[in-house]
Amino acid sequence: MDKLQSTINRIRPLDEEAVRQAQARQDSLTKPQGSLGLLEELSVKVAGIQGVAQPRIRDKVIVTMAGDHGVVAEGVSLFPQEVTAQMVYNFLRGGAGINVLARHVGARVVVVDLGVATDLEPHPELWVKKVAYGTKSMAQGPAMSREEAIQAIEVGIEIVESELSRGVDIVGTGDMGIGNTTPSSTMVAALTGAPVADVTGRGTGIGDQQLAHKIATIERALAVNRPDPADPLDVLAKVGGLEIGGIAGVVLGAAAHRLPVVIDGFISGAGALIAAGLAPQVKDYLIAAHLSVERGHRLVLERLGLTPLLNLNLRLGEGTGAALGISLVEAAVKVLNEMATFADAGVSEAME
Amino acid sequence: MDKLQSTINRIRPLDEEAVRQAQARQDSLTKPQGSLGLLEELSVKVAGIQGVAQPRIRDKVIVTMAGDHGVVAEGVSLFPQEVTAQMVYNFLRGGAGINVLARHVGARVVVVDLGVATDLEPHPELWVKKVAYGTKSMAQGPAMSREEAIQAIEVGIEIVESELSRGVDIVGTGDMGIGNTTPSSTMVAALTGAPVADVTGRGTGIGDQQLAHKIATIERALAVNRPDPADPLDVLAKVGGLEIGGIAGVVLGAAAHRLPVVIDGFISGAGALIAAGLAPQVKDYLIAAHLSVERGHRLVLERLGLTPLLNLNLRLGEGTGAALGISLVEAAVKVLNEMATFADAGVSEAME
Repeated sequence: MDKLQSTINRIRPLDEEAVRQAQARQDSLTKPQGSLGLLEELSVKVAGIQGVAQPRIRDKVIVTMAGDHGVVAEGVSLFPQEVTAQMVYNFLRGGAGINVLARHVGARVVVVDLGVATDLEPHPELWVKKVAYGTKSMAQGPAMSREEAIQAIEVGIEIVESELSRGVDIVGTGDMGIGNTTPSSTMVAALTGAPVADVTGRGTGIGDQQLAHKIATIERALAVNRPDPADPLDVLAKVGGLEIGGIAGVVLGAAAHRLPVVIDGFISGAGALIAAGLAPQVKDYLIAAHLSVERGHRLVLERLGLTPLLNLNLRLGEGTGAALGISLVEAAVKVLNEMATFADAGVSEAME
Repeated sequence: MDKLQSTINRIRPLDEEAVRQAQARQDSLTKPQGSLGLLEELSVKVAGIQGVAQPRIRDKVIVTMAGDHGVVAEGVSLFPQEVTAQMVYNFLRGGAGINVLARHVGARVVVVDLGVATDLEPHPELWVKKVAYGTKSMAQGPAMSREEAIQAIEVGIEIVESELSRGVDIVGTGDMGIGNTTPSSTMVAALTGAPVADVTGRGTGIGDQQLAHKIATIERALAVNRPDPADPLDVLAKVGGLEIGGIAGVVLGAAAHRLPVVIDGFISGAGALIAAGLAPQVKDYLIAAHLSVERGHRLVLERLGLTPLLNLNLRLGEGTGAALGISLVEAAVKVLNEMATFADAGVSEAME
């Protein structure tokens, strides 16, 4: 808890002077002012986050958090639980979607076992930070204890801190956990008060009947646990997931260390909502990679005050959308740093 | 005209067998089917375009066509005409937005002078293919002759053909021409029958009064020239631009040689509309990079049957949006080629 509280205490507002200088530079570059739209805004935001007029995006890291969910026993997912561990091995061999897209954008992938239901074979690129062998079924009682929820968040913070010495400039979030749209929807319903059906989607692709069952299961979990919407740790513990707690920790850790953090899809959004509940200032450090197909994601982004960069009908998770988003942030920063000014290039400015 | 006609004759439908094979492979990869959304669709489309089940995107080229516009004398733009030439030099020095974004995505930029109003200093990376020293003012009469319009298109085809020997896998379009939203809006109004005010935007950022004047100028150009909407060459000649004709040529040349062509914003869209008017089959070869801020672009994309990949409020042109779009196409193709299958990775498939 000390680590969590000290991290929250460390989070500061954006650097207004860096924002002002970056905006002034954008306005001097050889293009009509504002003509690179969201790229210009992104570059200025990252300047404010990093606290320098010309920010740097070189070392890019996507943290993919894995965990299992007891609620899978209720039949809410299309895939069996063993796929969580199988996909972790797939990440470590470089064959998953996140590996391909991270390579494409030049980002490293850090894989963390926060709560996979089985012991995984050791691997130099796997962080084993298991808080538990999966959560318990939230349809029967709390998914985890409050202490476990805090521990999961603190693992996320630790991962960010361990990347600082490697020179990380930007962090993306990712998740792997069969069944994890169910706790995510439950958390979003609990935190926002939205009707369950409005924030519950098809996950990996369930049909109408299974969707109705998923909604009923979520309603039962809320009735059984009565999570307190004003207490994000209570929500995370009772109806959340270990990897979702880890994502909340990545968000808090990144903000505390002035790193931009690119949020992937719906599960990452649920983690970011927990982080924003604990420390509202983190919203300034967030960049939404994309609008997911998963129902409820739009509401999450609204609550976080974020405009998604991409709308490609993605719903894979793992950090795949975050990888593409990171590349756009890098592009934005390069525009700010590398374009010629009107004065440098001898180009005539606009006539008023 | 021989080159134009033979190019049109060469354009074929997509390769259905390659489409089928690529779709089957996508469905075998370690992710829920369809969970990478538009990336999956893009990869399958590119397979059909290139005619192979596992397409290749390595050599990426953005063709940025430059030309001047006589209609600038009517006071339709915020920037003076000399900026066209100044920006061409900026491209050649690597300081413009397109240079930064092309470097970011690993694409080459090919700069072509199709109709800049002044003679440009020779440069190894500049193609001088000047059809005229800018167009004439379409508010007074035809912007160019029908022969010049054909010549401009044929230059675009030639540029693509010259890139074939360098191994080009994908082409992006780009434009530079102070005032060129005015002919683009005029062409779109002429080709679609839409009211001028609905397809005329603020270009580089003109205010309300100058916008009203721009609309009036376009209406005058349409009244003076009466372009025939059923004859794309007539539209291009009377109310178009040389670089816009060049873009139409790039589109036709790319489709004829089975290359995907990523369309930038509004001006590129106007060029693509001309190409699609001459050879409707080209639509299968087009990928829309983004939805521009420029009013009228949405209608252009509708007419071309395209869904834009990005919506970042861009309105710079030069091929900047195309560069970002090309990177997404490359990502899509890498997903198809590089991801592990369920069988390879030993991952359990969905339960039915």
